[in-house]
Amino acid sequence: MDARNDSLQRIILITGASGFTGSHACRYFAGEGMQVAAMVRHISEDDKVEGVQYYTCDLLDKKGIEELVGTIAPDYVLHLAGKNSVPESWTEPVLYMETNVLPTLYLLNALRPYPFCRILITGSMLVFPLYPPFRPPHPYGLSKSLQKAAALSWKELFGQAIILAEPSNLIGPGPSRGFCSLLGQHISAWERGETDEAFHIPSRIIRRDFLDVRDAVIAYKILLEQGLPGEIYSVRSGKEYTLGEITDLYMDIFEKPFPIEWGEGENSSQGNPKNTAPRMKGLDWEPSIPLRTSLTDVLEYFRTCGGDSK
Amino acid sequence: MDARNDSLQRIILITGASGFTGSHACRYFAGEGMQVAAMVRHISEDDKVEGVQYYTCDLLDKKGIEELVGTIAPDYVLHLAGKNSVPESWTEPVLYMETNVLPTLYLLNALRPYPFCRILITGSMLVFPLYPPFRPPHPYGLSKSLQKAAALSWKELFGQAIILAEPSNLIGPGPSRGFCSLLGQHISAWERGETDEAFHIPSRIIRRDFLDVRDAVIAYKILLEQGLPGEIYSVRSGKEYTLGEITDLYMDIFEKPFPIEWGEGENSSQGNPKNTAPRMKGLDWEPSIPLRTSLTDVLEYFRTCGGDSK
Repeated sequence: MDARNDSLQRIILITGASGFTGSHACRYFAGEGMQVAAMVRHISEDDKVEGVQYYTCDLLDKKGIEELVGTIAPDYVLHLAGKNSVPESWTEPVLYMETNVLPTLYLLNALRPYPFCRILITGSMLVFPLYPPFRPPHPYGLSKSLQKAAALSWKELFGQAIILAEPSNLIGPGPSRGFCSLLGQHISAWERGETDEAFHIPSRIIRRDFLDVRDAVIAYKILLEQGLPGEIYSVRSGKEYTLGEITDLYMDIFEKPFPIEWGEGENSSQGNPKNTAPRMKGLDWEPSIPLRTSLTDVLEYFRTCGGDSK
Repeated sequence: MDARNDSLQRIILITGASGFTGSHACRYFAGEGMQVAAMVRHISEDDKVEGVQYYTCDLLDKKGIEELVGTIAPDYVLHLAGKNSVPESWTEPVLYMETNVLPTLYLLNALRPYPFCRILITGSMLVFPLYPPFRPPHPYGLSKSLQKAAALSWKELFGQAIILAEPSNLIGPGPSRGFCSLLGQHISAWERGETDEAFHIPSRIIRRDFLDVRDAVIAYKILLEQGLPGEIYSVRSGKEYTLGEITDLYMDIFEKPFPIEWGEGENSSQGNPKNTAPRMKGLDWEPSIPLRTSLTDVLEYFRTCGGDSK
């Protein structure tokens, strides 16, 4: 083990560090006293988190990733980078496979000279079983299923400390394209008079597990420190809400009604997988941020940043 | 459907066409009256099969594959290209994932505008189940398992006529790096006095299913014409031989003993998966070339080409 890291700060490499979860992770791990190396494709000065060291590298740049890992010699890696839009995955399926599968392996391969490095790969609840008959819900789900199988198989082949987290729908302030953010952004735009259109919601009854991103990054730290290599950890609140309930809660926070157009659908392209896996497999973690706080913060974020969801 | 192809020759695109199976496939499909478009990374004039049209394209060149498919507008695709050395996969694991997984998707994506095209992907018997606990035998097995899951899932997502063949150990004349070829090449080199070293065989008792590559390409044609999209077809002789029996048969063909060094191993890095899947799922195909003929032809090939296995 590198003696330097025993006496000094632990170093964590975070990929996708300029994204929604990435920016929260940078803030949290820096606040926890870790030395944070943030890998980004590009980031504006305004979006940089204080105390974090940023490195520019494209995910598909195998050589660049190898050099970056060599420069940083991380103790921990939190791999958040990737593409995560279900609709976009239908129009760019190959791009999703390239971006979500290969860079994970570039990273793992580059980390082979660092056997003590603990690596957390963030997967998705929207995976499906990779055996016949193959029934992928969408190209995004296929890309994350292949990523999961590749990462956990790689762990067996090369004995690295690779752990998989499967987060539910992460919500909170920041540039997310999830349902709660899109609705919060719309309410804020409607409040400013920038739109008079109704927000379309496919169905009141779609149920989803929502978890505040700030609770998720705490779970990620616990997994990086205590997770068992080769294990899959479900990171979720454990409580599902319907899109109708979310909308009602927003109306309550906003203190007046805003225009909604309800669809007839009972399902969405994102599906609604039932997750019965034990949450965090018994590790000591509980979400602490109430849904109402998350939604209030989402609304406040869009009010402050003027509707620019990036 | 393209009217041109109803009245004229059927067009088959063969990838990996300069390889061991590829060169046999080019010869066979051209002989069957098909118009053969052969995709190769490079090929010497000497190795070209008469009547076959060659196209140079690197497997990792996504744009190039798309253009090639657009130029050819194939009725059939036989995807043979890829890397298939188990030992090499341990030293170049990322390269194996890149080469065996992504180009398959480049090809399938490029073929989406041709919904009537029938596509045969050649997998491997050395795959493993892609669910926990993940137990890949080697990076090659992982790459072929991911390729299989990706191709059959892609079929579900985009409704293309994608069929999977899982061949056993293909043998016969030509530039193969399989056991029978390596031994045949060694015997031929020993005969010419180019080596006096004994050929090392890890164990007499390793059992494998060997199939003549010329029988395999006939199976591939049947699958391209009659295979059910989404199905996995086991292409094998159905009879296993030990490496000891293969060696004895070579000695019988060669009519004198040659030096062998037997190892103590009971297993090899390539493993020995038991295949109990019904062969070709009831399609009308039987291997016709006896093992003795295959080995005789392998030996003759190395005697003629002077030991250059390429």
